Amino acid sequence: MKTATEYLWFNTKRHREYINITGKIEEIVAGSAIGEGMVLVSAMHITAGVYVNDAEDGLIADIDEWLEGLAPFRQDYRHHRTGESNGDAHLKSLVIHHEVIVPITGGKLDLGPWQQVYYAEFDGQRRKRVVVKVMGE
Amino acid sequence: MKTATEYLWFNTKRHREYINITGKIEEIVAGSAIGEGMVLVSAMHITAGVYVNDAEDGLIADIDEWLEGLAPFRQDYRHHRTGESNGDAHLKSLVIHHEVIVPITGGKLDLGPWQQVYYAEFDGQRRKRVVVKVMGE
Amino acid sequence: MKTATEYLWFNTKRHREYINITGKIEEIVAGSAIGEGMVLVSAMHITAGVYVNDAEDGLIADIDEWLEGLAPFRQDYRHHRTGESNGDAHLKSLVIHHEVIVPITGGKLDLGPWQQVYYAEFDGQRRKRVVVKVMGE
Repeated sequence: MKTATEYLWFNTKRHREYINITGKIEEIVAGSAIGEGMVLVSAMHITAGVYVNDAEDGLIADIDEWLEGLAPFRQDYRHHRTGESNGDAHLKSLVIHHEVIVPITGGKLDLGPWQQVYYAEFDGQRRKRVVVKVMGE
Repeated sequence: MKTATEYLWFNTKRHREYINITGKIEEIVAGSAIGEGMVLVSAMHITAGVYVNDAEDGLIADIDEWLEGLAPFRQDYRHHRTGESNGDAHLKSLVIHHEVIVPITGGKLDLGPWQQVYYAEFDGQRRKRVVVKVMGE
Repeated sequence: MKTATEYLWFNTKRHREYINITGKIEEIVAGSAIGEGMVLVSAMHITAGVYVNDAEDGLIADIDEWLEGLAPFRQDYRHHRTGESNGDAHLKSLVIHHEVIVPITGGKLDLGPWQQVYYAEFDGQRRKRVVVKVMGE
């Protein structure tokens, strides 16, 4: 069994941002020379997420608005007594989930025609990381 | 390390539908002759999901109604400016998530007594796929 | 490829409870002698979850209140016609998700500085299990 591990760094300009990282995952998988297996793509922060969906700007704006509805910014989260102000970002991360596993078949990401891997930043403008771990042979 | 990859096809009669695929996953795992490892079950479409929960019809109706509340059909999603009308299906898929990983122990799915694997269709009446990838030895 | 499988048992005092299991997962990974790979941590019940987020009591209380808002206790879930009263626990489990995969790098959980693995009990005061499966080499 072979593994390959790399880290992607992000420092978004905006507080919330959605970044298509499919091309970067494809490069890491190609570099690993693993033909059959899986790649784990996992945010290393608790106010960010990783998900698979469509690369369509209108939908991304819908997702952002919808997440703000489900897990809104509020002043009065208990978490803010620690001095933080990002309670909503933790909850948005829980909805979206912080990781995906993508199958690798014939050396390529085995995604459907519209599936793209996204990094979702919910508390940006600082350096944050995603771990990408390829396993297989 | 061994792997086995198969695809399940669905073409549901209804727009939204919940299909128990546990038996099909068990067959694929048995056919792989993998005794210890994991199986990834992942929808290849961005308007469908895969989840693990109870095979109880009342609960499935509750889940469907609840998802419609959290991610309702609306005319005015920005995504619909592309000509699509399935914005809600994308959001429902994000709530449920598009994939699960089930452990394989002693050649069998290592599920709890009530855990069943479901394919959740949120925009059906067309051909759609799920990838099933077994990894282990 | 090596694997190691262990089960954690829980019997919470309260109906809903959030338990940091990071230390237990670290012990299982250390005992497996697997240096590079992944560990799957998956609830074996459909009214519990496993997630990764912050070990901060205020945030945990926020998460609990927020989940009760998204997936409230109600008398009239169809699922309750079976004699059950835990429909909300199934829905809370679907939001949080029942499993996580954590990468293992250099023999350690490859988590970010604030990431902790939590068992989320939504229908406790009974014996319940989590499967922990390590895969790698």
